[in-house]
Amino acid sequence: MPKQVDHRERREAIARALWRVVEQRGVIHLTMREVAQEAGISLGQLQHYFASREAMLSFAMDFASEQASLRVSRGLQELGEPPHPRDVLRLMLTEMLPLHADARATSRMSAAYVLEALHDRNVRARARDGITQGRTLVEQLIRQAIADGHIDPDRDPAAEANLLLALTGFTTLLELDVIEPRAALTAVDLHLDRLFTRRTS
Amino acid sequence: MPKQVDHRERREAIARALWRVVEQRGVIHLTMREVAQEAGISLGQLQHYFASREAMLSFAMDFASEQASLRVSRGLQELGEPPHPRDVLRLMLTEMLPLHADARATSRMSAAYVLEALHDRNVRARARDGITQGRTLVEQLIRQAIADGHIDPDRDPAAEANLLLALTGFTTLLELDVIEPRAALTAVDLHLDRLFTRRTS
Repeated sequence: MPKQVDHRERREAIARALWRVVEQRGVIHLTMREVAQEAGISLGQLQHYFASREAMLSFAMDFASEQASLRVSRGLQELGEPPHPRDVLRLMLTEMLPLHADARATSRMSAAYVLEALHDRNVRARARDGITQGRTLVEQLIRQAIADGHIDPDRDPAAEANLLLALTGFTTLLELDVIEPRAALTAVDLHLDRLFTRRTS
Repeated sequence: MPKQVDHRERREAIARALWRVVEQRGVIHLTMREVAQEAGISLGQLQHYFASREAMLSFAMDFASEQASLRVSRGLQELGEPPHPRDVLRLMLTEMLPLHADARATSRMSAAYVLEALHDRNVRARARDGITQGRTLVEQLIRQAIADGHIDPDRDPAAEANLLLALTGFTTLLELDVIEPRAALTAVDLHLDRLFTRRTS
């Protein structure tokens, strides 16, 4: 196996160990020592792959985001050509919610990362960039859907994008079983139905 | 000062120290030792007030929730009699968002508590109960607003309550400065305007 690939795979295995620490032991255990233990390597070996705790956390967050993007890309391929913007937005939003094991790992990593961002300037800048990028993409999709006549032209694309992103707040309700996955999807569909309702046709 | 009051005040001071630890040092430092240090007391003194880390965390969360309820109660008094249900829902929702220092402390405590709930059954049960109670109240308000003719009778109170609670997802967007407080309030108002729009009058 080429050395570069092996290096990347090792880092991904460490990232997955980090996700398990967040999930099973709690963020208080999010130290390099405990992640090394969970990954079954020594602290020294871990430090060979990540120079600092922040580098390790940021890689684990980036890897989680990449996995989420891959899931969205795979989902898009199943939507037909061209996909309806409502389906694209629904796919992006639901992949951000903890509705299956992989999305749950991403979602928990993301929650831990946002808490880390409160007191770490670098983490904050990276987290902000990631979400801002996602937000821009959602707003562009809405603008295009308005241009293509799928959404009423009197809708404010920025405000509608903000509302859609805010619906990631279902995460907490789902994680704590306050509502069932089906109820979250019903509410998401209700919201999207209203967004895509044309008052004039 | 009566002993009971002093005991309560000491616990509240410790809870505030815990909030500062979450905010300034990060959840990884959420140990009894570091909270004691932040509160300016010894670990032994802290253990006199809280038998376990979980008891300390749960008190700090309950205290944060109580403070939020007090802010909502004070806000309700300014709404006039009887308050319009739209204003009540807006007040409840916006007090859950990190739009000012006190609400920010509650919001961050809550985010840390939800992460703790992932791997601690007691914390999970308490967190779930708290949010379920809030959700029930929101749904009751919506049902009453439908009965009083403020909201269309064809709206589903459960789904609308879920959507409103999901909008707490603005928290991350605000914490990371992805959007401005004004943009969050604009989107919240847009959502409430639609909820309270009567198609038949």
